[in-house]
Amino acid sequence: MSEYRFYRQRVYHFLRSASVGTGQVMFQENALSGLVFIIGIFWGAFESGRPEIALGALAGVISANIAGMMMNRDHADGHSGLWGFNGLLIGCALPVFLVGNWQMWIALVLIAMLSVRVRTALDNVMSSWGLGSLTIPFVLLTWIVLSASHSMAALAPVGSHTVNAGFPLDLSLPALATYWLRGISQVFLIESPVTGALFVIGLALCSLRAALWAMVGSAVAIVTALCFGADPNGIAAGVYGFSPVLTAVALGSAFRQSAGISVLLTLAAIVVTVFVQAGMDAVLAPLGIPALTAPFCVTTWLFLLMSVRTR
Amino acid sequence: MSEYRFYRQRVYHFLRSASVGTGQVMFQENALSGLVFIIGIFWGAFESGRPEIALGALAGVISANIAGMMMNRDHADGHSGLWGFNGLLIGCALPVFLVGNWQMWIALVLIAMLSVRVRTALDNVMSSWGLGSLTIPFVLLTWIVLSASHSMAALAPVGSHTVNAGFPLDLSLPALATYWLRGISQVFLIESPVTGALFVIGLALCSLRAALWAMVGSAVAIVTALCFGADPNGIAAGVYGFSPVLTAVALGSAFRQSAGISVLLTLAAIVVTVFVQAGMDAVLAPLGIPALTAPFCVTTWLFLLMSVRTR
Amino acid sequence: MSEYRFYRQRVYHFLRSASVGTGQVMFQENALSGLVFIIGIFWGAFESGRPEIALGALAGVISANIAGMMMNRDHADGHSGLWGFNGLLIGCALPVFLVGNWQMWIALVLIAMLSVRVRTALDNVMSSWGLGSLTIPFVLLTWIVLSASHSMAALAPVGSHTVNAGFPLDLSLPALATYWLRGISQVFLIESPVTGALFVIGLALCSLRAALWAMVGSAVAIVTALCFGADPNGIAAGVYGFSPVLTAVALGSAFRQSAGISVLLTLAAIVVTVFVQAGMDAVLAPLGIPALTAPFCVTTWLFLLMSVRTR
Repeated sequence: MSEYRFYRQRVYHFLRSASVGTGQVMFQENALSGLVFIIGIFWGAFESGRPEIALGALAGVISANIAGMMMNRDHADGHSGLWGFNGLLIGCALPVFLVGNWQMWIALVLIAMLSVRVRTALDNVMSSWGLGSLTIPFVLLTWIVLSASHSMAALAPVGSHTVNAGFPLDLSLPALATYWLRGISQVFLIESPVTGALFVIGLALCSLRAALWAMVGSAVAIVTALCFGADPNGIAAGVYGFSPVLTAVALGSAFRQSAGISVLLTLAAIVVTVFVQAGMDAVLAPLGIPALTAPFCVTTWLFLLMSVRTR
Repeated sequence: MSEYRFYRQRVYHFLRSASVGTGQVMFQENALSGLVFIIGIFWGAFESGRPEIALGALAGVISANIAGMMMNRDHADGHSGLWGFNGLLIGCALPVFLVGNWQMWIALVLIAMLSVRVRTALDNVMSSWGLGSLTIPFVLLTWIVLSASHSMAALAPVGSHTVNAGFPLDLSLPALATYWLRGISQVFLIESPVTGALFVIGLALCSLRAALWAMVGSAVAIVTALCFGADPNGIAAGVYGFSPVLTAVALGSAFRQSAGISVLLTLAAIVVTVFVQAGMDAVLAPLGIPALTAPFCVTTWLFLLMSVRTR
Repeated sequence: MSEYRFYRQRVYHFLRSASVGTGQVMFQENALSGLVFIIGIFWGAFESGRPEIALGALAGVISANIAGMMMNRDHADGHSGLWGFNGLLIGCALPVFLVGNWQMWIALVLIAMLSVRVRTALDNVMSSWGLGSLTIPFVLLTWIVLSASHSMAALAPVGSHTVNAGFPLDLSLPALATYWLRGISQVFLIESPVTGALFVIGLALCSLRAALWAMVGSAVAIVTALCFGADPNGIAAGVYGFSPVLTAVALGSAFRQSAGISVLLTLAAIVVTVFVQAGMDAVLAPLGIPALTAPFCVTTWLFLLMSVRTR
């Protein structure tokens, strides 16, 4: 094999791992889905005037894949996109919450690189109970940096850009459809109905069932949030949607066969995720950290554990 | 068997499970103890002008048993009352803390039903270290709803009804006896010396040792709380008592033989439970959630783990 | 053997266990290192006008060793100093944070005694993942008492004695050297460069590598804290140093061979410890408890888990 072809192949493998890694955020081991997700991230980041989020996403997934190649022996993980998805989420999240100075970018690259082995470490721990680490490496590492930012002057918060929904909340069909698609786009911390639609398309390219459950998850989340009087601005911004969407895709599609969870229990899990999210939002607010996708992880673990038969 | 007898038998089994489930809150697998506990709950709820607590207790234990029959294969658990005790506690707790609108009742029934399989799920996790989940399913599910209530306008807090003990705290023997019995009644979130006495009677019907340890637990808790200057209103209301009472019954009676914990260590565990409770009260206050029986669970787990011989 | 010689021998064994226990705080199973550490503690406690810290250290390590002899069968643990190190740290910490009335001393002796079996209990739990409990028994038991102090009037806080570093922070070489040595002395909650130097000597007596990593850990911690704009008073007081120093000694020396962690990863772990510490400081502040050595435990566990090869 010529040297040129060798490098071309390595670059191809690298880009493929990065794309599949983006797809794995929503459990799709598929480079095409990942590419559509990346297009969605870029659209949403530029639409909201924050291109640094798209840049962060790329930096995160690339750093993680470089670390994976350097530190790991298990290239099957890289091939399946399991190196990159936590790094990609870290790369989306840090620029959303922190000003983009060099310290932020160093922290982003450092924890995105660490996320690869943190995932295998936590997978080993969770496997004691037949569970995987889901997106908790992203959550824990991002919490470390965001909580540290309160003690470290060089890690400065960005002012919040959440939509102001007005009062009373507009409940017309077009408005509801916007909230509904935003709930899906927020999986990557993007607040854009177009991005949400692109994510649904990306899912459908790989699994119609996953796309369907993502749509059901966001819809059930909005209904639950409305029934229990959750913050209207949060509903409009889609922040009650992203964790339930992940729970829905995980339990309704990705782990459906292995866990044997019924449709009724999956719907219950979506509702419980909304409660866990509302609770973590309130409990973590005085500590100055966002819930991220922790409500999805906690609820999905609980329902996966519940699917095990009694001793 | 005639259809009539068949249904009569099912209803009998159902009521028996619900009663035993009430008994299991204090580790008594005994329908008679459970019935006396239920009488105590009704007395205390009506005495304090809050019948919704008694109604919640019934709704919780019934929902949990229905879910157990629907979802579980292991009817031995139901027979032993293990389906119902977390649901019963959820049913006592939610009306104590939240206004009784339809959203509260839906949340109550939903998490009471889930508590059955959450218990088996967490039992599976804890069994890695030879432990059971105790009342932690009740604690976690109630925490989810109570923390969510801060973000959800439809889940509104009830104003606190705790006794005002006056200053200085009345330390006459009759007053101390009242605090002491309230410490026992607070196991079911009831603040009534009569209910406390009924709970002691219910325990004694099944196990004299359990009744004795409940009394010792509440007494040691009051002495510890007084020595270390804990909040007088809390002492008078019995809120320093319920977790130590459960620790005392668990380590001194229920797990005594299997764990082989000495009387001295059980007394130490009661004192430590008071510290854990005082600490969790302070730490959880800014997060807006009560400690519930978490101090009992944490301390009992710790002392059960300690009873294992060194590696 | 005459009775005199028998008691002389027991006293000798007791003192040896206590000294080795002091050494074990920094992973040195060596009575001489422990003695130098104790001299350092006394120097720092008296230098800062707080002899009760030295007294607490002695009370803690002695209580723990008495409990070890009474409660444990495994005298090899005592011989290795594993009974005492958590008790010693408890004995240093409580007088730093709480006024020295009789309730504080009773709480100190009680939890120092319990720490022996809490260590074996948590070691059993952590061994599921091939980990040890490190100093987490000290952290958890001290958290219980310090959090309880907010609800218990008899456990009163001491006013903080941290140095005021002035603004801007003095970055001359002698000043930096002072902060650097204080970072090492803070392992035992002492704020004194002389004590820091004594700790390095104590380490070097047993392991040059450990002494070197302690020095590297404190230096890297200061550089990280400066780069990310951490609180100047904290940097000057050495409070950003003690957890990274422990991480450095643990990963770079004590567990180096068994875990096979590279120098690069050890340096990364030191940096991550600074972030975890900055984050826990911010998150725990509203809850009113200090991070203690929890950042060291969490980060060291994470990196030890990472050293396990992928599944």
